[in-house]
Amino acid sequence: MLKNGQKTIRIMTAVLLMGFGGISGWGQPVTVEQWGVFEASFAGPAEGNPFADVELTAVFRQGEKTLTVSGFYDGDGIYRIRFSPPALGEWTYTTQSNRPELTGKTGTVKAVEPGKGNHGPVRVAHTFHFAYADGTPYRPIGTTCYAWIHQPMEIQEQTVKTLAESPFNKIRFCVFPKWYAYNRSEPLLYPFEGTPPSRWDFTRFNPAFFRHLEKRIQQLGEMGIEADLILFHPYDEGHWGFDRMPKEADDRYLRYVVARLAAFRNVWWSMANEFDFMDEKTPEDWDRFFQIVQRCDPYEHLRSIHNGTVLYNHTKPWVTHASIQNGSAVEDFGRAVLYRDVYVKPIVFDEVKYEGNLPQRWGNLSAEEMVYRFWEGTIAGTYVGHGETYLEPNDIIWWAKGGVLRGQSPPRIAFLRKILEEGPAEGLEPIDKWQNYPFAGKRGECYLGYFGRQSLSEWPFELHRAGLSEGMKFRVEVIDTWNMTITAVDGVFEVKKRDNYTFVDKAERTVPLPGRPYMAVRIRRVE
Amino acid sequence: MLKNGQKTIRIMTAVLLMGFGGISGWGQPVTVEQWGVFEASFAGPAEGNPFADVELTAVFRQGEKTLTVSGFYDGDGIYRIRFSPPALGEWTYTTQSNRPELTGKTGTVKAVEPGKGNHGPVRVAHTFHFAYADGTPYRPIGTTCYAWIHQPMEIQEQTVKTLAESPFNKIRFCVFPKWYAYNRSEPLLYPFEGTPPSRWDFTRFNPAFFRHLEKRIQQLGEMGIEADLILFHPYDEGHWGFDRMPKEADDRYLRYVVARLAAFRNVWWSMANEFDFMDEKTPEDWDRFFQIVQRCDPYEHLRSIHNGTVLYNHTKPWVTHASIQNGSAVEDFGRAVLYRDVYVKPIVFDEVKYEGNLPQRWGNLSAEEMVYRFWEGTIAGTYVGHGETYLEPNDIIWWAKGGVLRGQSPPRIAFLRKILEEGPAEGLEPIDKWQNYPFAGKRGECYLGYFGRQSLSEWPFELHRAGLSEGMKFRVEVIDTWNMTITAVDGVFEVKKRDNYTFVDKAERTVPLPGRPYMAVRIRRVE
Repeated sequence: MLKNGQKTIRIMTAVLLMGFGGISGWGQPVTVEQWGVFEASFAGPAEGNPFADVELTAVFRQGEKTLTVSGFYDGDGIYRIRFSPPALGEWTYTTQSNRPELTGKTGTVKAVEPGKGNHGPVRVAHTFHFAYADGTPYRPIGTTCYAWIHQPMEIQEQTVKTLAESPFNKIRFCVFPKWYAYNRSEPLLYPFEGTPPSRWDFTRFNPAFFRHLEKRIQQLGEMGIEADLILFHPYDEGHWGFDRMPKEADDRYLRYVVARLAAFRNVWWSMANEFDFMDEKTPEDWDRFFQIVQRCDPYEHLRSIHNGTVLYNHTKPWVTHASIQNGSAVEDFGRAVLYRDVYVKPIVFDEVKYEGNLPQRWGNLSAEEMVYRFWEGTIAGTYVGHGETYLEPNDIIWWAKGGVLRGQSPPRIAFLRKILEEGPAEGLEPIDKWQNYPFAGKRGECYLGYFGRQSLSEWPFELHRAGLSEGMKFRVEVIDTWNMTITAVDGVFEVKKRDNYTFVDKAERTVPLPGRPYMAVRIRRVE
Repeated sequence: MLKNGQKTIRIMTAVLLMGFGGISGWGQPVTVEQWGVFEASFAGPAEGNPFADVELTAVFRQGEKTLTVSGFYDGDGIYRIRFSPPALGEWTYTTQSNRPELTGKTGTVKAVEPGKGNHGPVRVAHTFHFAYADGTPYRPIGTTCYAWIHQPMEIQEQTVKTLAESPFNKIRFCVFPKWYAYNRSEPLLYPFEGTPPSRWDFTRFNPAFFRHLEKRIQQLGEMGIEADLILFHPYDEGHWGFDRMPKEADDRYLRYVVARLAAFRNVWWSMANEFDFMDEKTPEDWDRFFQIVQRCDPYEHLRSIHNGTVLYNHTKPWVTHASIQNGSAVEDFGRAVLYRDVYVKPIVFDEVKYEGNLPQRWGNLSAEEMVYRFWEGTIAGTYVGHGETYLEPNDIIWWAKGGVLRGQSPPRIAFLRKILEEGPAEGLEPIDKWQNYPFAGKRGECYLGYFGRQSLSEWPFELHRAGLSEGMKFRVEVIDTWNMTITAVDGVFEVKKRDNYTFVDKAERTVPLPGRPYMAVRIRRVE
């Protein structure tokens, strides 16, 4: 199932290139895959506070194209610049710094054909959908483990193993650790220098913390999983104080994170989880955070922000897609599509409540309900994310800590993923929105209809007129979304116009259904 | 029922004041009601093209406050300036013009207490709702007669009479005539000089056309009905060509309309109906139209734009409220509220399909379904508009032409209006959004719950915790929204906490219901 997603991210460490200052001084090219990570490292000042005092950037140039990339201090007198070539061929670079020993370093990077599984970063495609940079469709099937990188190492390894066998190609998780119900433990590493839990020097980062984060992002990339990185969150409440840093610390943190991570092609930026629950931040702060990330990231990775009960204005230009918490929107037909209309961007329901058995009402969906919500989102032309909250004696709950999956929805989500991968490359579009017609697809070519909780014994084969003409022929399959079966219906359906809105089978055939809920039909044109 | 809305709009025609040029030259004040219409008229040039060549404005001043008001040419060498005083007391004015004979005219207007029924223009209040300028709540209960002012005079008079007896306090209609199915007749008057149907001098307006429009707006005002004026629409298709005027003509038309009408307190500006069906216009045109209207209207009347299938971005700052066409959004619970979240402005579903019997799917709702949609919109904290499309031998269909109402929904809408008027002044807010809890109201004080198509024999009396504490007491009424009855339930319900989310009656009493659809409950705190 993960065939398309098997990717390798290699970090190439360049030889420590000394600057020559002349046009002939870029030296022998270092080769790296297109969309891979090239890294150059330089010795520089270790005294003072290099995080705050030393500025380092490099301009990468290929013909008329230039990208300005920020470097970062990695401790021990070492500075690094990472670059992910967006196009094949040679790129030259020259560094700039406020320190002479880091100024004018030059070199050449040769970007070669990407390896198997390397499709580049994910972009918005066809307005409401996604594709990798090489054009391969990407259909997000996400999950959430907020604080998995802060758990004991054996649990982290278990999470990696679980993810490798899961249907998920995106995971949401936080940079900062989490302090919340079922989550009252200290992390292995802290992002800043200082004394836990709450005395930090926000001007000095902890490189070991970020190297660990990078290792996890790289592992996810190798599994074909996008890292939807949550930059701020409210689950701290001052315990560590990462939710209430001064403005300058927030901004410096964002610049540092982007400088370190933007070259990883599988990174997405989520400004926050439940941003509206962070009382210390203002609406202007969130706008500024978006703009900092946008300005500092030369690759324009996807950017969004996730809500509690108040939505961010996703029509703002720096938002690439809406990352929404609202289980209700996929709890019934006719809701999710409304977000498409207003945002005119991809809609990702990253939280629709969780499959589990918590007493909290956001944490006790049945597996059937979780799968149902995936399908409701799908036929609305949107994307749904998974989450799991089964109680466990040691509070190792997937939603926050990872570990193992206990629920029944993941295999059904894998089944849906396969169906999406067999669908139109452009993504599924609602066929006749606002008309109680539960079909998405590509008009005139292929249709996916979902009957939800209805237990129908037949469906009358009715297609909306758009894209149809009389005589077109279709094959029909009946899909049991829970039992994961696909059954072909005998014969071919040839359409004729019935009225101003609808085409039906010319013999007025219907499609037999088994009288169970959670059934779907897939209809594909054969001639 | 229209008690609150009985208003009088008087046009005061000032004596033709000659300018003195001195500070003592403002003369005896003319008195006018606050939010009434003061009009000054001046003789000026009639030669050339006064519509295009002569500029006329007046600055009205009261202490530090100034309003700049545009004048307009009304034909026959007469220029007029209309002013609606937004505050009590004396206002002085001085004219400015590019013609000396219209420059430096001065005068004084004394705004006196508004008369009965004059509450001023409607404004946005409490984020999602409306109130008149004097603070009186305004709950829009709108209808639509697109081209009623273009029908034979006896039909227009019939429409006025029908409206006077109707529950409606807002009507949507077009400035321009309509060319569409069931609408293929020429209007009584045209907005421009020229030769029907399609040879127009867009630089010369027809004052008789606009005086007729003003008469109708004034009559609506007298009945307490807001005039939601549609400035452009696509139902022309080049027959007259008002849908495809040059940019300069569009802009001049907007400035002229606003100069003439902005002083009428019951005007709302709707940039267009089904704006997205007007292929000749660009997104930039619509933004510009909003900005012209906003700049030219010193009173900041409400501004919106109505969609076909593509929504305008109602988060833009010049949009005061979302005027939405989408019947689906109020066809089931849990949809309409989503628009509130994204726009954070009042949501008015000005078209939810029509009660009627047209073959078109947008025109054949049952009366029950129309009333149902009003209630679904209401408990979502939004507002719904009425429309009617019953076939009639002469194509006098209310939706386009007015005349008489034939449907069964208006009395039920009147019944709902009364319930709204008895509700909280701030408007009805969803009590526990996104949680399948069909209640709106004011937490801890009053609740309106609607059970839609469900035929319940009882409701378990469950209130969301917000705003409650143990021991609070409530009375309950059962409302039959179709049969228009309100029945008190015996006794008092005293609440106790049941769980983290819910309060119930301490004796766990339930509310009996008659097992019919379209039932509601109203719950009001007694102590």
